[in-house]
Amino acid sequence: MASNIVAITGAAGYLGRLTRRHLSRPSRQLKLLDIADMGPAGERETLIRSSLTDADAVARLVTDADVVVHLAADLSVDDWAGVLASNLEGTYNVYEAARAAGVKRIVFASSHHIAGMYPSRVVTDTLAPHRPDSLYGLSKGFGEDLGQYYWDKFGLESVALRIGSARPAPIDPRERYTWLSEPDYCRLIDACLTAPRVGFTPVWGVSANDGVWWDNRHAAHLGFAPQDNAGDHMPAPAPLDAAAERLLVYQGGKRSLYRLAESADERLA
Amino acid sequence: MASNIVAITGAAGYLGRLTRRHLSRPSRQLKLLDIADMGPAGERETLIRSSLTDADAVARLVTDADVVVHLAADLSVDDWAGVLASNLEGTYNVYEAARAAGVKRIVFASSHHIAGMYPSRVVTDTLAPHRPDSLYGLSKGFGEDLGQYYWDKFGLESVALRIGSARPAPIDPRERYTWLSEPDYCRLIDACLTAPRVGFTPVWGVSANDGVWWDNRHAAHLGFAPQDNAGDHMPAPAPLDAAAERLLVYQGGKRSLYRLAESADERLA
Amino acid sequence: MASNIVAITGAAGYLGRLTRRHLSRPSRQLKLLDIADMGPAGERETLIRSSLTDADAVARLVTDADVVVHLAADLSVDDWAGVLASNLEGTYNVYEAARAAGVKRIVFASSHHIAGMYPSRVVTDTLAPHRPDSLYGLSKGFGEDLGQYYWDKFGLESVALRIGSARPAPIDPRERYTWLSEPDYCRLIDACLTAPRVGFTPVWGVSANDGVWWDNRHAAHLGFAPQDNAGDHMPAPAPLDAAAERLLVYQGGKRSLYRLAESADERLA
Amino acid sequence: MASNIVAITGAAGYLGRLTRRHLSRPSRQLKLLDIADMGPAGERETLIRSSLTDADAVARLVTDADVVVHLAADLSVDDWAGVLASNLEGTYNVYEAARAAGVKRIVFASSHHIAGMYPSRVVTDTLAPHRPDSLYGLSKGFGEDLGQYYWDKFGLESVALRIGSARPAPIDPRERYTWLSEPDYCRLIDACLTAPRVGFTPVWGVSANDGVWWDNRHAAHLGFAPQDNAGDHMPAPAPLDAAAERLLVYQGGKRSLYRLAESADERLA
Amino acid sequence: MASNIVAITGAAGYLGRLTRRHLSRPSRQLKLLDIADMGPAGERETLIRSSLTDADAVARLVTDADVVVHLAADLSVDDWAGVLASNLEGTYNVYEAARAAGVKRIVFASSHHIAGMYPSRVVTDTLAPHRPDSLYGLSKGFGEDLGQYYWDKFGLESVALRIGSARPAPIDPRERYTWLSEPDYCRLIDACLTAPRVGFTPVWGVSANDGVWWDNRHAAHLGFAPQDNAGDHMPAPAPLDAAAERLLVYQGGKRSLYRLAESADERLA
Amino acid sequence: MASNIVAITGAAGYLGRLTRRHLSRPSRQLKLLDIADMGPAGERETLIRSSLTDADAVARLVTDADVVVHLAADLSVDDWAGVLASNLEGTYNVYEAARAAGVKRIVFASSHHIAGMYPSRVVTDTLAPHRPDSLYGLSKGFGEDLGQYYWDKFGLESVALRIGSARPAPIDPRERYTWLSEPDYCRLIDACLTAPRVGFTPVWGVSANDGVWWDNRHAAHLGFAPQDNAGDHMPAPAPLDAAAERLLVYQGGKRSLYRLAESADERLA
Repeated sequence: MASNIVAITGAAGYLGRLTRRHLSRPSRQLKLLDIADMGPAGERETLIRSSLTDADAVARLVTDADVVVHLAADLSVDDWAGVLASNLEGTYNVYEAARAAGVKRIVFASSHHIAGMYPSRVVTDTLAPHRPDSLYGLSKGFGEDLGQYYWDKFGLESVALRIGSARPAPIDPRERYTWLSEPDYCRLIDACLTAPRVGFTPVWGVSANDGVWWDNRHAAHLGFAPQDNAGDHMPAPAPLDAAAERLLVYQGGKRSLYRLAESADERLA
Repeated sequence: MASNIVAITGAAGYLGRLTRRHLSRPSRQLKLLDIADMGPAGERETLIRSSLTDADAVARLVTDADVVVHLAADLSVDDWAGVLASNLEGTYNVYEAARAAGVKRIVFASSHHIAGMYPSRVVTDTLAPHRPDSLYGLSKGFGEDLGQYYWDKFGLESVALRIGSARPAPIDPRERYTWLSEPDYCRLIDACLTAPRVGFTPVWGVSANDGVWWDNRHAAHLGFAPQDNAGDHMPAPAPLDAAAERLLVYQGGKRSLYRLAESADERLA
Repeated sequence: MASNIVAITGAAGYLGRLTRRHLSRPSRQLKLLDIADMGPAGERETLIRSSLTDADAVARLVTDADVVVHLAADLSVDDWAGVLASNLEGTYNVYEAARAAGVKRIVFASSHHIAGMYPSRVVTDTLAPHRPDSLYGLSKGFGEDLGQYYWDKFGLESVALRIGSARPAPIDPRERYTWLSEPDYCRLIDACLTAPRVGFTPVWGVSANDGVWWDNRHAAHLGFAPQDNAGDHMPAPAPLDAAAERLLVYQGGKRSLYRLAESADERLA
Repeated sequence: MASNIVAITGAAGYLGRLTRRHLSRPSRQLKLLDIADMGPAGERETLIRSSLTDADAVARLVTDADVVVHLAADLSVDDWAGVLASNLEGTYNVYEAARAAGVKRIVFASSHHIAGMYPSRVVTDTLAPHRPDSLYGLSKGFGEDLGQYYWDKFGLESVALRIGSARPAPIDPRERYTWLSEPDYCRLIDACLTAPRVGFTPVWGVSANDGVWWDNRHAAHLGFAPQDNAGDHMPAPAPLDAAAERLLVYQGGKRSLYRLAESADERLA
Repeated sequence: MASNIVAITGAAGYLGRLTRRHLSRPSRQLKLLDIADMGPAGERETLIRSSLTDADAVARLVTDADVVVHLAADLSVDDWAGVLASNLEGTYNVYEAARAAGVKRIVFASSHHIAGMYPSRVVTDTLAPHRPDSLYGLSKGFGEDLGQYYWDKFGLESVALRIGSARPAPIDPRERYTWLSEPDYCRLIDACLTAPRVGFTPVWGVSANDGVWWDNRHAAHLGFAPQDNAGDHMPAPAPLDAAAERLLVYQGGKRSLYRLAESADERLA
Repeated sequence: MASNIVAITGAAGYLGRLTRRHLSRPSRQLKLLDIADMGPAGERETLIRSSLTDADAVARLVTDADVVVHLAADLSVDDWAGVLASNLEGTYNVYEAARAAGVKRIVFASSHHIAGMYPSRVVTDTLAPHRPDSLYGLSKGFGEDLGQYYWDKFGLESVALRIGSARPAPIDPRERYTWLSEPDYCRLIDACLTAPRVGFTPVWGVSANDGVWWDNRHAAHLGFAPQDNAGDHMPAPAPLDAAAERLLVYQGGKRSLYRLAESADERLA
């Protein structure tokens, strides 16, 4: 698939900066959008400073793009107004503008929080019903349904990356299971840009960690083959203390526990 | 489950009026909300004329209610602003107010349009991934995810009624498959109010029509046993003309075809 | 299959008496065993008064039998010594004697309590893992595993009847779902005696009640077609009070709740 | 779907004559082919006396047809030369001619013998792998694969009727399960001609008999609702003698047993 | 999870000695039980010489323990009295004492003989129905059902280790598939002690051998990642002689063949 | 399994020569058949120059053989006469002769073209329904059904190798996914000759390539463990041009596209 012009939303964030760096090459134009400062424009880069709620700015961003990597989101757990504006309306704006502009494919940063209320002892594939752990996770479910809809109705393709814990190195016992290394993230982006036909494909964005409870069998055609294992970047496992253990009961970690009713906790855990 | 006080949103609509009539009995208080005129209040009825976007009005509605039957929605196919306000924000307001008020169960009028882009030759159960046919259908997917979330996180139960074609009698060949009779709708409401523990349960709201392509096996515990069959209310099937046939290719009928890209139509049909 | 000589254990119990009556016919010998009084022997009847733990008595019972209907059991919820003796050792004695005597088929009265800890909102088929609700239910799981083992290893066939609530008429709201009528029990026994090849087949012993959460698809080859519906023998459903509702949360009813730890109750319900 | 011109192969056989009678109506042309005598042509009927191996005759038959009902076959159990000519080559000729002529849909008389080596205690749906019981059954597997292929590659639709025991009335204990009544056959043909979009759909052609071990869930969209039950046309079930019982061990009855190696019989039964 | 005090049954056996050695560390108390001599007690070790049928001894063993590793069993294939006493009654005693003492988790040595009558050409996961190959295997099925029951009813967690062929090195062609190395056994024990929430989880205890027919997908959350491969400890595969081959037809090897009826052998193999 | 005498059809072709070389050893007789020149016979080799349609020659070939490796086929995409003669009749001749001669096992070269019309984004296991991409692929479906039939009816075992792209090295971007290396082919042949009991087992013949969309879980018992990865023999993936991409849309590559109707292409892709 052509990827000569790639538009990126959320370019000032951690994954945005990594994506910008990784995708930069002589034959490619990058168009970048963020509400925050993105630094100076490089050669072959166009910067648009704007919120996603400005539909005109979004339309300018995606014009002529072959692919859109849509990373921007309000990450707060539970702020309805922010989720509504950035994640529901913003993502709708991106899809609708991309459709109008004839974009071929969207790479959408979904999240494992779309399934955060599954206990981690339930191995979960990408066809299992959504069980979001927060308003944030709910908005990612809406974004994936949008991706399915734009593919079914308009033939606009999407890959939805259900990102685990993206970080230079794992930082706590939970990330032994959920870590996504930077090289593996880059491999995933490459897979998204080169896979021949994806329709709407959700995929767990996670490294080749031992004991990972996410099952990518339905995304095999992407050819995503992670190489890193969190266990190689951490000390050997010891019995966990109660707090660390508790963060591993649900797939969504801290977000799963946020405001969790005691009766629901007992029921699910 | 106690259902001495039942709150109903969308009480002025077709299903709203039917529900109001059906649930009226000496031992029960009804609290009704609509943006349109609901006629005079009966005994044991409280009327609130308001939009769902008025969170205070919604809070007043659900106070003290045992159950909320949430029927109100913007039914237009593809009006993003209306969907955002009424169906996304409005449904969030209902769930959040119900949680705060300690309501036990919500009966949520979802829709078969949550799955409207499945071809009708694919038998579909209630665990299959959403494939909405419209912004309307997308908003129902969001509402069902909300129901799952409020159950998982807060222990608030929901039944999501994926209503087919609710109408006094079937009116076209498609409704041979999709019709929901009034008595069967009432049976379904009764099941929602008496079933002992539902967690979050989606259920197809459809009569016992021959050839129905919706599979309710995962909702058996509701005890919903429809008695009507559209075929008894229609002439025997004849070969369909092309237009009638086309409306039967996708599960969502007309909404599935609305703005459908030609290439997508070929692919899915 | 020949059923000229049928041996019955537990012949003095409710189902034992019903089975004895139903199977009586001129061309057939009945051999009956119980630890309790079985009344006088009819023509073509042999009575053996004994416990199942007397392996010699059991061997005498099954000698020459074509089929054994094994109904005897200690029904107490939670009496380990009784369960060990009557249900574990007793059932082992029946299978081992039947194998030695060349019996062709055993009809084993298992119980729905083999799955009593499934919430009733989980539709359950006969291949789902056992989730017993009591020591009694555990012993039925052992009995079904015995049936599988004697078929796999020795070619001795079994049907395991997972009996719901067998009774002349349904007596409480729970039995709207779980009732097994006498005529349907007799139909089931007939199916067990005439079905051509059953290997080891478990089957839910339940009438054609609305909303039954037990799925018999894997036993279709038995040709068991129940005709009764508890709903025809009860008043229309009303909202349940809390106690009735609670008995419907788990598939095993009262046995599921017996000694149930509060934390487990919250988790499962 | 238009069915103004219907071509029928095998028109002189039992199902051919029934189909001819059932489909006859003022607005429709019938084109009939058989190698045997079909009697005199009626109004609006064209008769072609020919074998299916004559590709030119087959081409003449399907010209201008909207639908082809392909019933002709060599029914012998195990005659390789006959199967090769009539069922493999003949069916290929029908599909290839239909494609060339722009026919919209083929109704293909497949057979339950495509799955005849499944034990009857294994409930079987239409997606299960083929397990033919004879060269005849093998040829039906080839015919279904042809139907899948012509749909996938050329967009030519098919329904494959896996006919049980089609006969005016059931004649032996096995047909209690496998019988297809004449009215139900006609209902099935009607469903094949009126269903809006079938792609390639296999369907068990069997009446609504108790204990039927064939599962039509994946063909629900055809709207085929059989009304007859073999049990209403037969005396109540009695214990079967060994010969009748043996014919019920495999789904294919007598054909399953034909030349069956003793070791295979032990293994499968 | 805390594992400061670990109780081990069967401490004098092969796995018992290995477990004792592996779990020994300065911060931990070990309480050991066996009917055979366990050698001298080390520091921080308590030894109890007793049979499992002595409920008082078992109660003393588990008092204050955080975890119980229950390895003791009668290993004879087919000794009903021994199985009844050691494996049924003994395991019941362990669970009941652990519940009374407030133990958090039991690691139960189940066995692959719980599924030994599956042909080895049937890939088997941990949710498949039990198919025991011996009275020994039957008793392991009872033990797993106990584990499920104590979790469902009382919230006492278990991991059931379905141990393959645990041995320092593989000794015959069958163990190319079924071998469990000592380091992998220790990794599995570590996983059982550190995994955050296991409920009732069965897991195949087998190394990372090529061609292993046991599927651990439902136990992914344990984080058990075996590192050894029997193939690295054996010569390259040669065509097997008939005796070696026969031992590989069923999953249970020699136990599967013990007393196997010829007709059953033909049917299953 | 004994493999002292191995018969090979298609011995002059690429895989035939590789097989002949790989299987040659002092203790083994090879019997080779091809219609083309096979070069001089080695020691312990018998050569038969013949077409598969000569049933007598085939009978001579398989006499006394322990195993037949059946590789011969007409490889042309769409030549009905050739497919009929070589692949349908020829394969029937091989099975029927092998049965008559008491051969124990057939290794049949099936092809991934049996499933070539699945989009490559659908992960496909060996139980999924056939979706052939050509008359060639159709004939492989017939051959696999023959293998199932001869196992079910006569106890003659088969492994069906669904060969991907067998070649010394991968030659285009598609083969990154579909390549089968020569060493891995030889490993697969070894597995077919040493696996203890295979019944009828289909297996994808493909190396351990990243992103392979074929799932071999149901063939785990063969113990086939491929070691090569096409990615190690090719440059890193770059965005594909449109032509390369198009060849990756369907599992069958070029054969899937051959004569593909535009409407079907849109529908499936």
